[in-house]
Amino acid sequence: MKLASTKIITVCALILATNSAIATPATSEKHANKANELRHAVFTMLGANMGALGAMAKGKIPFDAKVVEKNSIRINQLSFMIADYTSTDTSAYKVDTTALPDVWTKREAFEKRINDLTIASEKLVKASTSGDESAIKAAIGGVGKTCGGCHDNFREE
Amino acid sequence: MKLASTKIITVCALILATNSAIATPATSEKHANKANELRHAVFTMLGANMGALGAMAKGKIPFDAKVVEKNSIRINQLSFMIADYTSTDTSAYKVDTTALPDVWTKREAFEKRINDLTIASEKLVKASTSGDESAIKAAIGGVGKTCGGCHDNFREE
Repeated sequence: MKLASTKIITVCALILATNSAIATPATSEKHANKANELRHAVFTMLGANMGALGAMAKGKIPFDAKVVEKNSIRINQLSFMIADYTSTDTSAYKVDTTALPDVWTKREAFEKRINDLTIASEKLVKASTSGDESAIKAAIGGVGKTCGGCHDNFREE
Repeated sequence: MKLASTKIITVCALILATNSAIATPATSEKHANKANELRHAVFTMLGANMGALGAMAKGKIPFDAKVVEKNSIRINQLSFMIADYTSTDTSAYKVDTTALPDVWTKREAFEKRINDLTIASEKLVKASTSGDESAIKAAIGGVGKTCGGCHDNFREE
């Protein structure tokens, strides 16, 4: 299982590494709202998967390595979608978002943060089948750190 | 690339085949709204990926086999998430949704539809690297048919 998961991620990374997406302005309010809906969708799913892992790491819900494996694979898969779903600059329109303009103006730094999440979630997928609960919890912390680090700079408080 | 993609899907299927999720009722309005947000998120992402493919198949936007490959991989990955994100029965609460109660009461039939999408998107991933545009368009049609078939029975018109 461990090898299998590693293989998926490596292959997915090779296929999807072309994701890097230059920011382009939304062309209408409708376009901005649609882009905002998609951006919100991917972060909603990331948050739901990470929320359960954070709760496990803090002992708030029972630890379950199978759920860690499943959620970390999902976080990894979703991480490859973030660049595309944040590539439309909606800052010229009034949309309901906490995204800061730096998401589009500091694109290289933002995509570096996405890559940090990809790498941290890869590590968590590998750790999840190790049977070592403290190592798994540490790897959950590693993913959480990349979420928080990005939120600090690219999301409203 | 073709083999690699096939391998991803097969391995993902093995890992994530335990996804089958029995429907359980939401325990509060807050819970129902959160479940609804996640359900909406996964279908928003499915729709965005499929929308572009449908437009290509109909000749409304330029055909791009690389985009077909990327989107079909994403649809496949997302298909494995649908069962979890539709497992909370929100029908006792007033939430903004087009999901029909059969999503929860006819769970076996609904999950069969999810599996149809998984299989059709697998076929499209394989076709996407064949270089055969008409075969790729036919496989896009195969995915679209599974979307429409499910919407007919499980989504409000």
